[in-house]
Amino acid sequence: MIDLRDKLREFAAQRDWDQFHTPKNLATALSVEAAELLEHFQWLTAEQSTRLPPDQQEKVRDEMADVLLYLIRLADKLDVDLLDAASKKIAKNAIKYPAGLVRGSMKKYSDY
Amino acid sequence: MIDLRDKLREFAAQRDWDQFHTPKNLATALSVEAAELLEHFQWLTAEQSTRLPPDQQEKVRDEMADVLLYLIRLADKLDVDLLDAASKKIAKNAIKYPAGLVRGSMKKYSDY
Amino acid sequence: MIDLRDKLREFAAQRDWDQFHTPKNLATALSVEAAELLEHFQWLTAEQSTRLPPDQQEKVRDEMADVLLYLIRLADKLDVDLLDAASKKIAKNAIKYPAGLVRGSMKKYSDY
Amino acid sequence: MIDLRDKLREFAAQRDWDQFHTPKNLATALSVEAAELLEHFQWLTAEQSTRLPPDQQEKVRDEMADVLLYLIRLADKLDVDLLDAASKKIAKNAIKYPAGLVRGSMKKYSDY
Repeated sequence: MIDLRDKLREFAAQRDWDQFHTPKNLATALSVEAAELLEHFQWLTAEQSTRLPPDQQEKVRDEMADVLLYLIRLADKLDVDLLDAASKKIAKNAIKYPAGLVRGSMKKYSDY
Repeated sequence: MIDLRDKLREFAAQRDWDQFHTPKNLATALSVEAAELLEHFQWLTAEQSTRLPPDQQEKVRDEMADVLLYLIRLADKLDVDLLDAASKKIAKNAIKYPAGLVRGSMKKYSDY
Repeated sequence: MIDLRDKLREFAAQRDWDQFHTPKNLATALSVEAAELLEHFQWLTAEQSTRLPPDQQEKVRDEMADVLLYLIRLADKLDVDLLDAASKKIAKNAIKYPAGLVRGSMKKYSDY
Repeated sequence: MIDLRDKLREFAAQRDWDQFHTPKNLATALSVEAAELLEHFQWLTAEQSTRLPPDQQEKVRDEMADVLLYLIRLADKLDVDLLDAASKKIAKNAIKYPAGLVRGSMKKYSDY
């Protein structure tokens, strides 16, 4: 990820794009890319979504890459350590969703 | 990331949540989390978004973690190597946006 | 809709919120509300989504209202006649998706 | 809106698309369209977003139309009266955001 962060810095610098890369704009671009990823699944059944045709697989992989790239770029601008934040979030989630309580159910937390 | 992937597998297994984690549902959850991240920035000016108050910083970090976690989980289900995909996408983008051509501009590709 | 537009104008004026209601911010808020609506469906099967429990129905109705309100507000700021635009878009779609060609299929246009 | 609802019913029936129009899928499509609308604004400054070039205006109008059409279609499937829901939501918001308290500020409700 450090390597990707550095490549993205260089990419932006070479294009004079840092002026556009405010946290607000990057969070927007991330959300737009996430929706582009979702678009590939919107009319599929749950079952169809598990076996994408090969041409769709490549498009989906590219959209996932875009999401990750904007996330890394935003983390760089906000000085967030993504892997550390994700690791801590799993620990928080483990407390929020005790395995014994939520087993087999995805109800909202507030419903417990 | 491998470590996070494994923790997420265990987390889902312990809660019997794999039944909900279809690629379609995970792509939806990812998009929802990206919007929750964006929500923190929606009324801020570009300038304000660069200096979040500390309590907002923690919330934003947690939302970014959620985005990453769903992305890793989706990649696991679709058998995508995220870091490799991101690295290749940067190379594609370098061709799509030649530094000399797009310098200082964020127009859509189709406009070049 | 004219009535809602006028109420929203008054609502914003009374709170001195026009300064926040730039088209960029309103489009962001609209997207965030659409994701909040989607959140209610994210772990449901297609079949479950057709029969929401009553408490979910009310929340979903409120999220749909929020989407409409931001859409009307954005249309007001951009001077767009929503009903006219929607009517014209249906006519465009009828040409884009000829009934005889797309019957029973939701493939992307580019695939025809 | 009743007229648009009826046209959309006919549109779907002619294409045998009702099978795809589950509330879950329609909420997804709505969110995807909202993001496509947002995409037009993602790199613009607040000020630029108030004066879109004419070619962008038409694209933005079409995206807004798509959002409205999916919203009407979803409301039809869930038996929601959109205008009534929106009117009631404004009344709720007036209580949630008392003009005297929130004047000139967009902080989250929880912060009051």
